[in-house]
Amino acid sequence: MGKIKAAIVGATGYVGQELFRILYSHPEVEVTAVTSVSYTGKKYSDVYKNFNGITDLNCTEGDVEKLSETNDVIFIALPHGIASKSVTTSVLEKCKVIDIGADFRIKDKKVYEKWYGVEHFGEEVLKEAVYGLCEIHGEEVKNARLVANPGCYTTCSILTLYPLVKEGLIDTNSIIIDAKSGVTGAGRKLDIGTSFCECNESIKAYKVASHRHTPEIEQELSLAAGKDIKLIFTPHLTPMNRGILATCYAKLKTETDYKTLEKVYEKYYADKKFIRLLKEGIFPETNHVKGSEYVDIGFAIDERTNSVIAIGAIDNLVKGAAGQAVQNMNLMFGLDESTGLDTAAIFPI
Amino acid sequence: MGKIKAAIVGATGYVGQELFRILYSHPEVEVTAVTSVSYTGKKYSDVYKNFNGITDLNCTEGDVEKLSETNDVIFIALPHGIASKSVTTSVLEKCKVIDIGADFRIKDKKVYEKWYGVEHFGEEVLKEAVYGLCEIHGEEVKNARLVANPGCYTTCSILTLYPLVKEGLIDTNSIIIDAKSGVTGAGRKLDIGTSFCECNESIKAYKVASHRHTPEIEQELSLAAGKDIKLIFTPHLTPMNRGILATCYAKLKTETDYKTLEKVYEKYYADKKFIRLLKEGIFPETNHVKGSEYVDIGFAIDERTNSVIAIGAIDNLVKGAAGQAVQNMNLMFGLDESTGLDTAAIFPI
Amino acid sequence: MGKIKAAIVGATGYVGQELFRILYSHPEVEVTAVTSVSYTGKKYSDVYKNFNGITDLNCTEGDVEKLSETNDVIFIALPHGIASKSVTTSVLEKCKVIDIGADFRIKDKKVYEKWYGVEHFGEEVLKEAVYGLCEIHGEEVKNARLVANPGCYTTCSILTLYPLVKEGLIDTNSIIIDAKSGVTGAGRKLDIGTSFCECNESIKAYKVASHRHTPEIEQELSLAAGKDIKLIFTPHLTPMNRGILATCYAKLKTETDYKTLEKVYEKYYADKKFIRLLKEGIFPETNHVKGSEYVDIGFAIDERTNSVIAIGAIDNLVKGAAGQAVQNMNLMFGLDESTGLDTAAIFPI
Amino acid sequence: MGKIKAAIVGATGYVGQELFRILYSHPEVEVTAVTSVSYTGKKYSDVYKNFNGITDLNCTEGDVEKLSETNDVIFIALPHGIASKSVTTSVLEKCKVIDIGADFRIKDKKVYEKWYGVEHFGEEVLKEAVYGLCEIHGEEVKNARLVANPGCYTTCSILTLYPLVKEGLIDTNSIIIDAKSGVTGAGRKLDIGTSFCECNESIKAYKVASHRHTPEIEQELSLAAGKDIKLIFTPHLTPMNRGILATCYAKLKTETDYKTLEKVYEKYYADKKFIRLLKEGIFPETNHVKGSEYVDIGFAIDERTNSVIAIGAIDNLVKGAAGQAVQNMNLMFGLDESTGLDTAAIFPI
Repeated sequence: MGKIKAAIVGATGYVGQELFRILYSHPEVEVTAVTSVSYTGKKYSDVYKNFNGITDLNCTEGDVEKLSETNDVIFIALPHGIASKSVTTSVLEKCKVIDIGADFRIKDKKVYEKWYGVEHFGEEVLKEAVYGLCEIHGEEVKNARLVANPGCYTTCSILTLYPLVKEGLIDTNSIIIDAKSGVTGAGRKLDIGTSFCECNESIKAYKVASHRHTPEIEQELSLAAGKDIKLIFTPHLTPMNRGILATCYAKLKTETDYKTLEKVYEKYYADKKFIRLLKEGIFPETNHVKGSEYVDIGFAIDERTNSVIAIGAIDNLVKGAAGQAVQNMNLMFGLDESTGLDTAAIFPI
Repeated sequence: MGKIKAAIVGATGYVGQELFRILYSHPEVEVTAVTSVSYTGKKYSDVYKNFNGITDLNCTEGDVEKLSETNDVIFIALPHGIASKSVTTSVLEKCKVIDIGADFRIKDKKVYEKWYGVEHFGEEVLKEAVYGLCEIHGEEVKNARLVANPGCYTTCSILTLYPLVKEGLIDTNSIIIDAKSGVTGAGRKLDIGTSFCECNESIKAYKVASHRHTPEIEQELSLAAGKDIKLIFTPHLTPMNRGILATCYAKLKTETDYKTLEKVYEKYYADKKFIRLLKEGIFPETNHVKGSEYVDIGFAIDERTNSVIAIGAIDNLVKGAAGQAVQNMNLMFGLDESTGLDTAAIFPI
Repeated sequence: MGKIKAAIVGATGYVGQELFRILYSHPEVEVTAVTSVSYTGKKYSDVYKNFNGITDLNCTEGDVEKLSETNDVIFIALPHGIASKSVTTSVLEKCKVIDIGADFRIKDKKVYEKWYGVEHFGEEVLKEAVYGLCEIHGEEVKNARLVANPGCYTTCSILTLYPLVKEGLIDTNSIIIDAKSGVTGAGRKLDIGTSFCECNESIKAYKVASHRHTPEIEQELSLAAGKDIKLIFTPHLTPMNRGILATCYAKLKTETDYKTLEKVYEKYYADKKFIRLLKEGIFPETNHVKGSEYVDIGFAIDERTNSVIAIGAIDNLVKGAAGQAVQNMNLMFGLDESTGLDTAAIFPI
Repeated sequence: MGKIKAAIVGATGYVGQELFRILYSHPEVEVTAVTSVSYTGKKYSDVYKNFNGITDLNCTEGDVEKLSETNDVIFIALPHGIASKSVTTSVLEKCKVIDIGADFRIKDKKVYEKWYGVEHFGEEVLKEAVYGLCEIHGEEVKNARLVANPGCYTTCSILTLYPLVKEGLIDTNSIIIDAKSGVTGAGRKLDIGTSFCECNESIKAYKVASHRHTPEIEQELSLAAGKDIKLIFTPHLTPMNRGILATCYAKLKTETDYKTLEKVYEKYYADKKFIRLLKEGIFPETNHVKGSEYVDIGFAIDERTNSVIAIGAIDNLVKGAAGQAVQNMNLMFGLDESTGLDTAAIFPI
């Protein structure tokens, strides 16, 4: 059997590029096309000079319908509002699609339209989209034609809180997620706020009480809880290229000890290759997951306030985007989910 | 009248050095002595080469009793547990003391001893120590002989939350402070965790549910609330030299709008030179306060969860340590509190 | 006598803003106007939030002729090609001008036009412009109406090499300057190359063998040598906000020992407040001059190749731009040259 | 045939750890032992938490003789002076050795002893050691039992200059190498100079005219030139984790154009997988090689001074250490030299 033919639509953003890097080392995949609105016609290795000697592909236009005819899978890494137009049932009949953008993550069209401020055009395919958080929805992903790859903050936040919510251990009215992201999370664009001199050596919160990853986290945690959850999510821009740290707070319903919670985490994650539960007293740092698919999770109980503080760390471009997309692809094509992803985090870098 | 004669005990830590920098530009102060355990006998400008051409002082031993005989004020910037031994009533009869360390901040000797793990030897003088958070205890500071200069995290956290607590607007059982500090907060010491390659490009929480600034914040907010408060405080090591950002969360007691809270903040801070209340929708970033005495505060109401998210930013070495010590000195000596501190933050740096 | 009235034309670039910061703390100056093409009409403190509480000025249009009527000095911090049009003899009859841009630095109009690719419109006033490298041309500056403030790289490079060239100790055909600058040197502009993720954690050379500071360095060193010098100048973009380090290489004409060269440096610089000659074996680092007007210089002799390696460090925005402009202003107005500039470098920051 | 059994002696330094990371993804290698003086008995994944889930190995003592009995290859990543004692002919009869340290790089024992200040104990095996700069000595490496893996600065400097020297195009008395390295180059050790706050946001030269990589570069370029070369090498500590940029200067013997030099570079490097010759006007940046084995080289001719400026970039821990060690291993074991190394640089990171 030949290699899986893959196209990357939106290949010149940071996520698209990271995806290309991972797929280049994937033993079962051949990247056939890299598309770009901004750089159509240019050599990919002139746009990203780290690809010099790696690929001779030129950037092409991103016609999803057309790409679906010659590829086995299409990865879409575009700003929201575009994929919902181009991913049709016609496309899905020919080719699997993994949308790394936001268009198919929110099940409720109205919630999507409220938070994203655009109309959703893909209501039909939205129904069949599987939310591709592999450690939770892995089984559904295996049979999906369309996977909505989770957001970076959401991946980290949901996985950190999931066992606690699922087991009903915390007061779901008390959840606060204070998240910190590296600057690649803002994408590759011209913006004085992400210019070196403005964000280097400084930290700030942004989109306070209004970030679009909020309803996505709420959707998944509500599903786990079996009831509607509203929570606070505050993202921070941190002076580093990569990494997300999510510090999550919640009141415990009853007095609980560390061992009890530890068992709950183990129940859900002990068999998950890419989730690493840290030992008591050890907390994640983004340094230990960079360039890798790993999610590091540690937690503490604050007895004084009867609360749990659970902390997760991921590489926003890998587990938070491109890597998880590949993990999803592996599941969709019947490969071991770690194929092409089984690497140690690179450190120090 | 001559200049105020000042000695810096522990002048070769980052705080001591920053204090020397500020005092060098202070029109009413002359630094007479810089003491150091590690560098006794060495030229100060060989230890800190930025002081080349600024001072010819050599580092001396730090005998507080002796220094009190020839100085008007002694600043102590030492690890905890030392000042409580050396600051005696005999010293205070001759000379004012501003302790930048932790020894005189906690009013309750037992609380101090529990969190710091050492015996407190200065119970007698502890009683008269004034907690030097200038914007709150400024009047008491004016008459103090001994000022306990607040911690860096505590300064930022307390000032950000104070009006809300004082006015009884928030549920005091729901307070969470998620704080981020630059690496200078860890001091100048050999530690693999603060070596460049280990903390550069990475963020992590540390001392989760156990940081010593917790009881200090609780003491002051309890005082404001008129009742005992327990809260969650989580510090994070952020890859930047300077700055603290405190993201503070609390449930509102009742539905409240932005304008109402804005007026409360203005009630307490409108006349405070170094507190800047940001406009609605603007949140602090540490970049805008570096090298300055300013505290920037912004907040938002999250209607979905009926909570307030209040955010404060300071320079940990200035308002969080050396600058506030000078502000306290100004008050103690009857000077305008901004003398030597009225400078714009330096940016980008 | 009242304060010196000063206008800053081009106040919303990094240099203009740094100038405002320095002038704010200058005891003899009042800033009357800050002009900006991009932000006309906006509050200055909305453009630079570190100026919140510092100034209420709004940005205005930059009519130099008009500003000359109500000010004692105009600082111009604009891209090249503009000042040469707006600085006229009519302006200079009313008001002193310090141009921080490049328009009046190169004495030879043709050399300017070749390297800058634009016509020079101010030939008449060009003749009277004094090259404001204070430590070398300080006496001429005192009587100047128009000062051309030197470039950042040039200030550092010329001062590092000047004594060696002036005394004829080095082979002037062998001079190589390998310079490293922080990213503020590129100014405040939208450019993918200076976005955080692209230049953070990376170093590169740029404008190899073609940077416009080359003829400026050559002009001044040729003047010192009394003969025409051509040299190699290579700038590098370094992942830090501020600072320039110039590593300068030249063959020694004869075998020379350290002490001999040390005396030569002392001859020219021992009485210069802002030049610090480091001890043998100590070399500059940009950390020790940040936020200050100091120039640190150290050197070594490489006996194996009979060469000298002389290294200089400055803060590019202070001694390399705004600070030196103030130093020039001090000289032009008969003040002590260090007024408003006598501060220690801020560290660590 | 089974996998190559490999031991890493000195596995808890940054180089040893990077080697382990690369070997973990190498399809033909099994790491059997990781030794460490500082961490003997500890779990490797407790020392480097990025190895959590990757390995269960404990750190052991580093007895090279013993390890040679059960391994096919031993990598030694230790400070100089140790390997020269432990690598004996007895060891080499049983097992191949790749020494990443300096002990077998310098052919002339006296030169080694002068620059390194220690006695060399392995004179016998020194003779057979092959200098493992793969692109130049690849053929010899194939038959070697002992390979001296080149230094980081030296790899970058030699490869950048080699074609010019080999072809006799430059004046060998005029070579200057101005090199910039990330902080990982200093290794993992407690040193105030490499603490975050002291080297972040700052650049400096160090070991001016005295760095130990000088004789190593001279040895190889002298060999290429067929005559003794003395040159200037100046390393700089740059505020980034990884990467080396070597900016190399030399006078051209005759007037030469870009195309001529380009052909010379192509002659030597066109068939070298890991050397990328950049197009005219493009110069390397360390960002484009991080995490990869690539060497990027670009150059310009400065007609004004008849000089060439050739610039090379590598990842100091990969091509400058661990990656090249694996490339050497591949050659020694008859594998394709790119096995386990054929990955794109990771960016932005």
